[in-house]
Amino acid sequence: MMKRKNIEFWFDLGSNYSYLTAMRIDALAAEKSISVTWKPFLLGQIFKRFGWDSSPFVLQKEKGKYTWVDMKRQCAKYDIPWKQPSAFPRAAVYPMRVAAANESESWVGEFCRRMFVANFAEDQDINSNDFVIKTINSMGGDGRTIVDLAQSDEAKAKLRTQTEEAIARGIFGAPTFFASGEMFWGNDRLEDALAELDG
Amino acid sequence: MMKRKNIEFWFDLGSNYSYLTAMRIDALAAEKSISVTWKPFLLGQIFKRFGWDSSPFVLQKEKGKYTWVDMKRQCAKYDIPWKQPSAFPRAAVYPMRVAAANESESWVGEFCRRMFVANFAEDQDINSNDFVIKTINSMGGDGRTIVDLAQSDEAKAKLRTQTEEAIARGIFGAPTFFASGEMFWGNDRLEDALAELDG
Repeated sequence: MMKRKNIEFWFDLGSNYSYLTAMRIDALAAEKSISVTWKPFLLGQIFKRFGWDSSPFVLQKEKGKYTWVDMKRQCAKYDIPWKQPSAFPRAAVYPMRVAAANESESWVGEFCRRMFVANFAEDQDINSNDFVIKTINSMGGDGRTIVDLAQSDEAKAKLRTQTEEAIARGIFGAPTFFASGEMFWGNDRLEDALAELDG
Repeated sequence: MMKRKNIEFWFDLGSNYSYLTAMRIDALAAEKSISVTWKPFLLGQIFKRFGWDSSPFVLQKEKGKYTWVDMKRQCAKYDIPWKQPSAFPRAAVYPMRVAAANESESWVGEFCRRMFVANFAEDQDINSNDFVIKTINSMGGDGRTIVDLAQSDEAKAKLRTQTEEAIARGIFGAPTFFASGEMFWGNDRLEDALAELDG
């Protein structure tokens, strides 16, 4: 049996450039019959290894200032809603545990997109179990049960392990893609990563 | 008289992503009847202000490793020659003084492209007055005279002043573009910067 072409999308729900990808990847991948695996990891842990206690967009003020101009322009270009978050980077460990624990569920992409939109287009605090429950319920799922499972030791360990895997594979930022074993970094490389699988 | 549309291309001859732009900008700008101003500046001075004593591609080994994979792929995509330099980042203050002192000369783009190609496709040491003289001579210019002028106090000050201007304008990396007063960072934004002028 032929294995279906697959792209791994490594992201943090607090990463603004991951948001651009989250809003684009499913449609672009579907055009080429490529499946998407959503791989959340804790980007802050990667930054800590570099000796950074926050995002480079906070630590380098010139880069940070530019980032918000760039985000506004990129969202306009891709026709994606945008509102600069009043808190950045926003912690998102609770919804990311849900995403990690439900990687193989068909609804995980839609769930992550809703979290990204809440963070980057509605300026909402997404690191709240109540908010996560409400979101899953509105998608027709059982929010309480899913959130309870995501707070189990096993589910917590899944996100930690995935973050360690990200480090081991040389991930240094988000979004990062793996396609045919090749690593691509940045929303600007999404098309290249998909083309790698389309050859 | 209508002012011709112009894009400012801020670069360092030691910057690999500036190389990608240098090989693309003239043709893309010409399609839209946009003129290009080549603005060299010392990127290392910007990095020093962030407390970095080298390029982030050296200081962050994961990012550095990825950068060379990315460069190989980007050069293949754009059909640009590529050979990973044995020295990086390569100092280029001598040829950059020549570029700064001759900003308004019609040959400055071709001169910079030859320096970039020597650095990133031929692995040559470009921070040499002999090499610069030879290159200008091969372009039909008077290499010796131009290099002598570029070593004057005035020409040295021009590159320093331009670097200070880069800092004052919020430049934090290279390449950076200014189009209609808007700043764009990175070779990946070249098309967006040109589109800004084409509106």
